Amino acid sequence: MKARIAINGYGNLGRGVEAALSLCPDMELTAIFTRRDPASIKPNTPGVRVLDAAKAADYASEIDLMILCGGSATDLPVQGPAFAANFHTIDSFDTHADIPAYYAKMDAALKASGKLGIISVGWDPGLFSVNRMMAGAILPDGQDYTFWGRGVSQGHSDAIRRIKGVKKAVQYTVPVEEAVASVRSGSCPTLTTRDKHRRECYVVLEEGADAAAVTEAIVTMPKYFADYNTTVNFISEEEFDRNHRAMPHGGFVQRSAHTAEGSTQMIEFSLKLGSNPAFTGSVLVAYARAALKMAARGESGCRTVFDVAPALLSPLSGEELRAKLL
Amino acid sequence: MKARIAINGYGNLGRGVEAALSLCPDMELTAIFTRRDPASIKPNTPGVRVLDAAKAADYASEIDLMILCGGSATDLPVQGPAFAANFHTIDSFDTHADIPAYYAKMDAALKASGKLGIISVGWDPGLFSVNRMMAGAILPDGQDYTFWGRGVSQGHSDAIRRIKGVKKAVQYTVPVEEAVASVRSGSCPTLTTRDKHRRECYVVLEEGADAAAVTEAIVTMPKYFADYNTTVNFISEEEFDRNHRAMPHGGFVQRSAHTAEGSTQMIEFSLKLGSNPAFTGSVLVAYARAALKMAARGESGCRTVFDVAPALLSPLSGEELRAKLL
Repeated sequence: MKARIAINGYGNLGRGVEAALSLCPDMELTAIFTRRDPASIKPNTPGVRVLDAAKAADYASEIDLMILCGGSATDLPVQGPAFAANFHTIDSFDTHADIPAYYAKMDAALKASGKLGIISVGWDPGLFSVNRMMAGAILPDGQDYTFWGRGVSQGHSDAIRRIKGVKKAVQYTVPVEEAVASVRSGSCPTLTTRDKHRRECYVVLEEGADAAAVTEAIVTMPKYFADYNTTVNFISEEEFDRNHRAMPHGGFVQRSAHTAEGSTQMIEFSLKLGSNPAFTGSVLVAYARAALKMAARGESGCRTVFDVAPALLSPLSGEELRAKLL
Repeated sequence: MKARIAINGYGNLGRGVEAALSLCPDMELTAIFTRRDPASIKPNTPGVRVLDAAKAADYASEIDLMILCGGSATDLPVQGPAFAANFHTIDSFDTHADIPAYYAKMDAALKASGKLGIISVGWDPGLFSVNRMMAGAILPDGQDYTFWGRGVSQGHSDAIRRIKGVKKAVQYTVPVEEAVASVRSGSCPTLTTRDKHRRECYVVLEEGADAAAVTEAIVTMPKYFADYNTTVNFISEEEFDRNHRAMPHGGFVQRSAHTAEGSTQMIEFSLKLGSNPAFTGSVLVAYARAALKMAARGESGCRTVFDVAPALLSPLSGEELRAKLL
């Protein structure tokens, strides 16, 4: 029997999860929950139910696991513990600094309900974290580097769109080539924020807006842009819609280290993603499979990617994995 | 208290394990077992005991885990089950085709003794396997590529040394640049054995040996060289000793895939190793830590890298890992 998976939230990530489930013969999308008017949602999966998120608990017996596709700022801190009262959960909570507090809340809620949840699943936090952690455990005497991009930063794009005179905007985070080359040479450089990434902005102005003022507002914006080399390109709406609607991303985690006899050793994990939400959705779905296996053997409470043995992610048996993939 | 680790076999890999243990404050090298005359072994660790491998069982109460550093062809099939009768074990059994049979033998021996063992630890099999497996579970619709090198193949170097007239020899496995570029472009090429790797040989001839005959014997050798583009370079013994005594290696595992909405997605894991045995030793030591944690919670029997949750590899607590590395 297929595992019955539901999605809460049907934005970019929810659609990514839906696409990923369509490639998994052992799971099926059984319902989409939304805060919007269910009639306004047009799912890609034929026949799937769209239901009011406020009534999700009524469907607990029909759903094996809930994938939470809300944002980390305001959605998940509320939705995570609420859904954990009735469902095994997977989420992509990605505010790194708040993970310990979110973990504590989720662990309490999941233990109270006897359910199992895996938080902060995706690629960073997620696969990048696993690679940072494993590389550090294997090579204790070394230095970690993480580069993001070339890819769209939703937060930075939003920040530009809030500037007066901006109609549309997208921001690409771009690793600085010299820094990447220096890291990959194994030279263990010391790099500032500005050394590592630059920011490329594509902006469509409102009629009559002042380009110089918009540029100034972007490049001097604290936290978001002031610490980076930033370029601002003004383009037509037509060009924007043609060239800047995809959501590519990627990056890499690298560890340069020494073993005790004196050799240099380097481990690198990298991603080149045509669509960030479709990839992140694929990661959430693989960890949903793992969560169901962990729950089936009686586990409950909160977990992270660090707690999940690789084999649990696969639909193959241990025997098949050893014969085909070891 | 530090975990008391012993090594069986003190060749290149045993010395790599010894070096790795010196960087781990939670473990100590407590003994080296050898089939050679113990007096002939000069360990790098001050004060460590060197003991007769045949008497290892006598020391079972003084050792928490045994790292088996023998070869896969003849050593491990005998030593693995023998040591499993008295010790938790880690080994790097690397004959891919024979893993299921070795697993079965080790699992029976370990279950009989109530001990826990992890087999086939290292980088391939090992970390490459974990990455192949995870990438396939996350992106089911795709294609895997594995490239090895540039690095020394011990098996191919040995094969050359068995040719009449060869005094010293080393063989480097080298990924073909065009093939690597094609894979990294995401074009999912179909590649033959010859397309993917070439073989570079450096040979010191015996006095009066026939270079043309040696070249012919190498490049036509079935399995080892006949299916590859092979270059043979004759060098002086002095140059050999100066430039070809290190044991670098590396390579990468890449998966090119599509998500269901049509995007191209790529995952790559790569290693650039100054010393293959020192790196492999570091992997064995991290998995030794994991094995001890699994044994401490009452587990026994045979495991592989697929069964080990990442957190088990680290000396840090779950709380520290979530706060620092997620």
